[in-house]
Amino acid sequence: MGTAHRVVIVGGGFGGLEAAKALRRAPVHVTLIDRRNFHLFQPLLYQVATGGLSPGEIASPLRWVLRKQKNTQVILAEMIDLDTPARRVILSDGQIGYDTLILAAGSEHHYFGHDHWGAFAPGLKTIEDATEIRRRILMAFEAAEREPDPEACRAWLTFVIVGAGPTGVELAGALGEIANDTLRGHFRAIHPQEARILLLDHDSRVLPSYPPDLSRKAERDLIRLGVRARTGVLVTEIDAQGVTLRAGHETERIAARTTIWAAGVRASGLGAVLAERAGAPLDRSGRVVVEAGLTLPGRPEIFVIGDLARGRDQEGQPLPGLAPVAIQQARYVANAIQARLRGSMPPPFRYLDKGSLATIGRAAAVAQFGSLHLGGFLAWVIWLFVHLMYIVGFENRLLVFIQWAFSYFTFNRRARLITGPSPLPFKHSPQARDRIATTRHG
Amino acid sequence: MGTAHRVVIVGGGFGGLEAAKALRRAPVHVTLIDRRNFHLFQPLLYQVATGGLSPGEIASPLRWVLRKQKNTQVILAEMIDLDTPARRVILSDGQIGYDTLILAAGSEHHYFGHDHWGAFAPGLKTIEDATEIRRRILMAFEAAEREPDPEACRAWLTFVIVGAGPTGVELAGALGEIANDTLRGHFRAIHPQEARILLLDHDSRVLPSYPPDLSRKAERDLIRLGVRARTGVLVTEIDAQGVTLRAGHETERIAARTTIWAAGVRASGLGAVLAERAGAPLDRSGRVVVEAGLTLPGRPEIFVIGDLARGRDQEGQPLPGLAPVAIQQARYVANAIQARLRGSMPPPFRYLDKGSLATIGRAAAVAQFGSLHLGGFLAWVIWLFVHLMYIVGFENRLLVFIQWAFSYFTFNRRARLITGPSPLPFKHSPQARDRIATTRHG
Repeated sequence: MGTAHRVVIVGGGFGGLEAAKALRRAPVHVTLIDRRNFHLFQPLLYQVATGGLSPGEIASPLRWVLRKQKNTQVILAEMIDLDTPARRVILSDGQIGYDTLILAAGSEHHYFGHDHWGAFAPGLKTIEDATEIRRRILMAFEAAEREPDPEACRAWLTFVIVGAGPTGVELAGALGEIANDTLRGHFRAIHPQEARILLLDHDSRVLPSYPPDLSRKAERDLIRLGVRARTGVLVTEIDAQGVTLRAGHETERIAARTTIWAAGVRASGLGAVLAERAGAPLDRSGRVVVEAGLTLPGRPEIFVIGDLARGRDQEGQPLPGLAPVAIQQARYVANAIQARLRGSMPPPFRYLDKGSLATIGRAAAVAQFGSLHLGGFLAWVIWLFVHLMYIVGFENRLLVFIQWAFSYFTFNRRARLITGPSPLPFKHSPQARDRIATTRHG
Repeated sequence: MGTAHRVVIVGGGFGGLEAAKALRRAPVHVTLIDRRNFHLFQPLLYQVATGGLSPGEIASPLRWVLRKQKNTQVILAEMIDLDTPARRVILSDGQIGYDTLILAAGSEHHYFGHDHWGAFAPGLKTIEDATEIRRRILMAFEAAEREPDPEACRAWLTFVIVGAGPTGVELAGALGEIANDTLRGHFRAIHPQEARILLLDHDSRVLPSYPPDLSRKAERDLIRLGVRARTGVLVTEIDAQGVTLRAGHETERIAARTTIWAAGVRASGLGAVLAERAGAPLDRSGRVVVEAGLTLPGRPEIFVIGDLARGRDQEGQPLPGLAPVAIQQARYVANAIQARLRGSMPPPFRYLDKGSLATIGRAAAVAQFGSLHLGGFLAWVIWLFVHLMYIVGFENRLLVFIQWAFSYFTFNRRARLITGPSPLPFKHSPQARDRIATTRHG
């Protein structure tokens, strides 16, 4: 294999992993580079953040997934630079040569110039993000149970989610279930169902990328779960005590001890590396504007796919940052590489929109398949089925299915662990220090 | 309930949780205090450390376990002191009064005066310990794959476990399985089955608390898994590069990048608090020497149970630090409290030894039930059955069972995630920095 065509793939998400798998029978040597040793099923990460699933159940070790693929090597490393003339990827601890490079490094949180908000409003991209959000949510209820001052208690029981796209809606729905069902009867001094869950967006409706009738359906389902959507508002400040927002000309302060960021992503910093080293054009979100064949202008040996790429559909509309886009692009690139090796010219990439789905909580979801718009239980069943099918590995699929079944019938969420470097103590109001709340419900 | 007899329980492990459950119908108000929000099934923690199970699968939220028990409140807090005259437990953020106190705070690692070894040889007590050990084990194989220098590579592939009691034997056996079966074929530059796994103990045999014939059986099973037991040796130094030991008059250095501590525990620091505030006598390991009724001498309102207590059996032998001891003590204490409230005098505690079990890896275990000694497959089936039955919650039991079944037939361990604050980079030898290992087998 020493002289085989070397394909280097950066990123083991939906795009990168699919590209590696699609090259399994190609006469190439594949190297898949990722900073993490596992593929993460991102669409269910919000369930880890809300205690419904354990991290291991939505992650699959990359080496295990690719263990039988003899032309493929997995390397745990971080790409930090690119040497385009020498065709070498520069890692934080070495370098590696390529004949064809596929960049699929994904996206990261974006606080729109307010990076200091990150400490107060974590976003949801990694396993560590998810367990940190889980810790904050569960700790807030614990702190409220111990807090005798009503106003301070109310701030612990107020949860703000910034951003009402699919991730924000899914998090808010799951939080609504936690407060109303999962924790019912678990506390003695508070009623968890009194929690306030606010879902903020500067757009005029939730799920702005969906058709308006589905936004209305979603908002109705959210209200049923006790989530209040506040649309058309702009967040101007976030700190440990709450959120400041502007609605029209009014400024408003919300006292909230837990804020979660679901408002924005930008492309991985590798986009900037490509711009500098290969003259790649970037869009406003740092995504690489690719040619019709998903390559860099003037660099046919470099492909960019998934959330790092700015692709367009047949009508010239930008493609959304969804797993199906990355997967279709990966398969296209694998075919294009093989076509080139045979000396033929690959056709341009075409995205086939199979629809989109977002879940809102127990037995509710919205779905769009072309002009067909679905809500409620039917959309939820489709959501369940599609997500189960895409989880890597039969065992993970079975484990997730069992837990969904249990949680549907028992309302429980097993994985409610407060973990992390310093689980205690939270800070109480001054009153709480001499008065342990032992108030009991009448 | 305001005037009910107040029972405060410190610790939600096997002893504390069982005590709370056993008081569910008693005319008392129970407060269970723990630093963590979950009960941890410690006997399977080594499976989390070796990627076989996820943390959520061996932990149960305390509030969920006790949700239907109306006379019980759970408080997430840390006990730091005791005010015996006022009968108040002092927390890091408050205080709480008791009429009867049950201390079940367990034990912690003990490095026998070498606390700086903790950074190089983590022990296995908490979920965070387990995920840290998992990270180190998996990262060692990743680093070896990238390491071209044979000597440095060998140090990455050398794993030392200090302490050959049940935890050390179980960890060593699981590591043997990982190297020989789970990771087989997952790497391209190394053969994981070449890993060296050393199990050290200063005693003359593994499992010193078991009968000698079972120690011999266990050692034979370990050899089959590629684990080398080195008994009769004393560890004199541990650092990031390896372990120094003394065997007789010889000193020896083992280059190993991964060392795990399974050699010693001591009682929770609350033992010292009891000694200072209530004059409790402590043994060498910091355990509280209790009366026949599990109370402090002269303080009948304070019970101490589980690993924090030094109890004795009918022959005057100290009781081992095992879950069945803590559970039996908890039930005894709950009955004793109710007997006292009725005005009667509880009999002394008697421990009923139901036997002990340790697993050594795939299809091998040792078991002692009185004079009946078992090894091999039969002991392993008993081990599986007993452990499944003691896991809290039917759903966790089912999830663990499914994963054991999969892992028995597929040799896989799903939960092999490298997680934590800084998963990358590891440090390579200088050569590795310019040479990415792309060596391929065959």
